[in-house]
Amino acid sequence: LTTMVIHHLNNLPKTCILADLTSIKESPLFEMKKVHAGPVVGLHPMFGPDVTGLIKQTIISCEGRNPEQYQWLIEQFEVWGAKIYPVQAHEHDQAMSMVQVMRHFSTIAYGYHLMSEGADIENLVAMSSPIYRLELIMVGRLFAQDPTLYADIIFANKDNVSMMKRFAYRFLELLEDVSLDDKDAFVAMFNNVSDWFGDYAGDFLEESKSMLLKANELKKD
Amino acid sequence: LTTMVIHHLNNLPKTCILADLTSIKESPLFEMKKVHAGPVVGLHPMFGPDVTGLIKQTIISCEGRNPEQYQWLIEQFEVWGAKIYPVQAHEHDQAMSMVQVMRHFSTIAYGYHLMSEGADIENLVAMSSPIYRLELIMVGRLFAQDPTLYADIIFANKDNVSMMKRFAYRFLELLEDVSLDDKDAFVAMFNNVSDWFGDYAGDFLEESKSMLLKANELKKD
Repeated sequence: LTTMVIHHLNNLPKTCILADLTSIKESPLFEMKKVHAGPVVGLHPMFGPDVTGLIKQTIISCEGRNPEQYQWLIEQFEVWGAKIYPVQAHEHDQAMSMVQVMRHFSTIAYGYHLMSEGADIENLVAMSSPIYRLELIMVGRLFAQDPTLYADIIFANKDNVSMMKRFAYRFLELLEDVSLDDKDAFVAMFNNVSDWFGDYAGDFLEESKSMLLKANELKKD
Repeated sequence: LTTMVIHHLNNLPKTCILADLTSIKESPLFEMKKVHAGPVVGLHPMFGPDVTGLIKQTIISCEGRNPEQYQWLIEQFEVWGAKIYPVQAHEHDQAMSMVQVMRHFSTIAYGYHLMSEGADIENLVAMSSPIYRLELIMVGRLFAQDPTLYADIIFANKDNVSMMKRFAYRFLELLEDVSLDDKDAFVAMFNNVSDWFGDYAGDFLEESKSMLLKANELKKD
């Protein structure tokens, strides 16, 4: 769809800044550079329509062409309080496939799994601690939204299929440790991942504690 | 371990209330009833050590023996502000396998996957929107904690292995839709799950919105 829209553009004045705001950056930038001879930039706002202002919000920017001509636009976003994070388009797409595609997809698969197992959602909610409630919320909120939005993000890049297959096989590989009762292998893997997270693990634990206290305050009794 | 501890108990006075606080209920209740002739109850507090009081916190209770003799204890927890949720032990264990075991395990598998894919954690954090940051936090926080705690929960019940295998196969089944570019099948599945979530989907969306605003306020700039 993005490509189609881009190809409908023609005769843009040379001083016009052409920018897209989609979740993928590499191919739209490529297409935009084909239809327009002036400045081109890829922008990915890391926030949704509920946000009322740019303060503390992240916008990822990917250079397309003539950055000196769109620099004022970037600076204007910063004046409005946004944090601009410049990266290469392919680096952006790779990160998004891990964070966005992979997480959306496994969350959807988990919802499908809950339904298929015949779980009792009312029971699950009633029995949940703040942290499981938060996890259930993250799953349920997705299914209140537009499926085509998620389908578009997930189906956009077929490279993600093999990446996600690797996840499923790793999942089954770790499950093998459980079925063989090999706790040592499981703990060794866990410690490797902890080392990989480094300081972030501890930071995230601290941050999540304040989050969970907030979550509990927001909970209806 | 729980069973071992229980079997060390002997000669408890008949009026003593025997209760466990572990994450599984069916087998500890069975063992407790063997070693003790008096009142027995299974309790599962749905909160961690960071919580400073019982107000608004959930405690699941599973009847063991002579509930009339431990009723005063349950009522005392309620006086302190806790919400008591009574269920059958096997119902509790089934719900926990979906909420706790399944979510812990797939979160751990996702951390292992991030590491194995050579993801750049600094980049991921910098590029994340509040919602992906929240998801990363939920993954990272786990790896700051004790692996044996998680291993004990996950390895406790071997029935969970087949349940989680079914998840992995469902994941691969949905991935097949993506590789075949079958958006219709994907959207149809999505809508079925939405219907299954019913009103919870919309409620969770609303609740998560206020959560995400809070999360953004807590974010260090």
